[in-house]
Amino acid sequence: MSFPRSFTAHVFIGVSLDGFIARPDGGLDWLTERGEAAEGDLGYQEFADGVDTVVMGRATYEKALSFGRDVWPYDGKHVAVLSTRLPADADPRVTVHRSLEELVEDLEKRGAESVYADGGQVVQSFLRAGLIDDLTITTVPVLIGRGFRLFGDLDADIPLTLRSTADMGAGITQSVYEVAR
Amino acid sequence: MSFPRSFTAHVFIGVSLDGFIARPDGGLDWLTERGEAAEGDLGYQEFADGVDTVVMGRATYEKALSFGRDVWPYDGKHVAVLSTRLPADADPRVTVHRSLEELVEDLEKRGAESVYADGGQVVQSFLRAGLIDDLTITTVPVLIGRGFRLFGDLDADIPLTLRSTADMGAGITQSVYEVAR
Repeated sequence: MSFPRSFTAHVFIGVSLDGFIARPDGGLDWLTERGEAAEGDLGYQEFADGVDTVVMGRATYEKALSFGRDVWPYDGKHVAVLSTRLPADADPRVTVHRSLEELVEDLEKRGAESVYADGGQVVQSFLRAGLIDDLTITTVPVLIGRGFRLFGDLDADIPLTLRSTADMGAGITQSVYEVAR
Repeated sequence: MSFPRSFTAHVFIGVSLDGFIARPDGGLDWLTERGEAAEGDLGYQEFADGVDTVVMGRATYEKALSFGRDVWPYDGKHVAVLSTRLPADADPRVTVHRSLEELVEDLEKRGAESVYADGGQVVQSFLRAGLIDDLTITTVPVLIGRGFRLFGDLDADIPLTLRSTADMGAGITQSVYEVAR
């Protein structure tokens, strides 16, 4: 499955060395406690400033809500939730989409230019559909053994090009990979 | 489970960005074709020169044999295979061990000083038992989507200390992590 598109899509995410983005209960303590010990914000703000749209799955949306209904980190951006279960009118701050096809069509209609693909499910769906342009992977020095994985099953290899890699302090490394179109 | 030991144990292994060390059929093409494009041997010879013992599971042992019965890359080192199925007298070049306890006891008796823990099963067993001192992880710029994973389930987090990270050319990065004893 591939989609014609005029937007670019980008991943910016933290993982444990063993490839998890959250514990089985969604916990991020292993990530946040180490992220706070690193230099600055690990480039997040600069990345976020460069996107006009955020796409996430229901799990990531609910995690965002868990920080408090009044704390909405996506002001000024269009937020799309890809979910078969979230009610369409759940939250006036987001649009809800039942399928990747419908989501991409809507992003095109809205004239999205630069999309932040967030959360394991969205990253995996976007990768499988050839929708990701680059990935900034921040690797945290811990093995947590179980939880939600960043990457999933693929029908074919996805070769990447390393753009940069850096030691960010506190044992954290950050690598930027591009996906060939 | 933890073992008193006088040897140190070390991991030196290549993984895809999504954490696999081999395809479902054991295939390493995605790794070797990229490794050959990198600078030198990525530090393998220096690492191998520093160990007196190699421990592997049956799958890794059989992979080593697949390069030809006369090609034995472990000359001059003691090779131990951890396997419940491999016959004890399968190969005069290796000793076969049925359990981690028995293996560690034998390594102690032999006066092993520096052990190379190779293959996913051995790395995972050794990590769970607190037997690993450091890991040199060489990450290759490709997602392969399925196969044998380097890391597995754990009973508790294993915090790591990053010793170094480097761009090795050809899109390959190499990071060295220490495990706190």
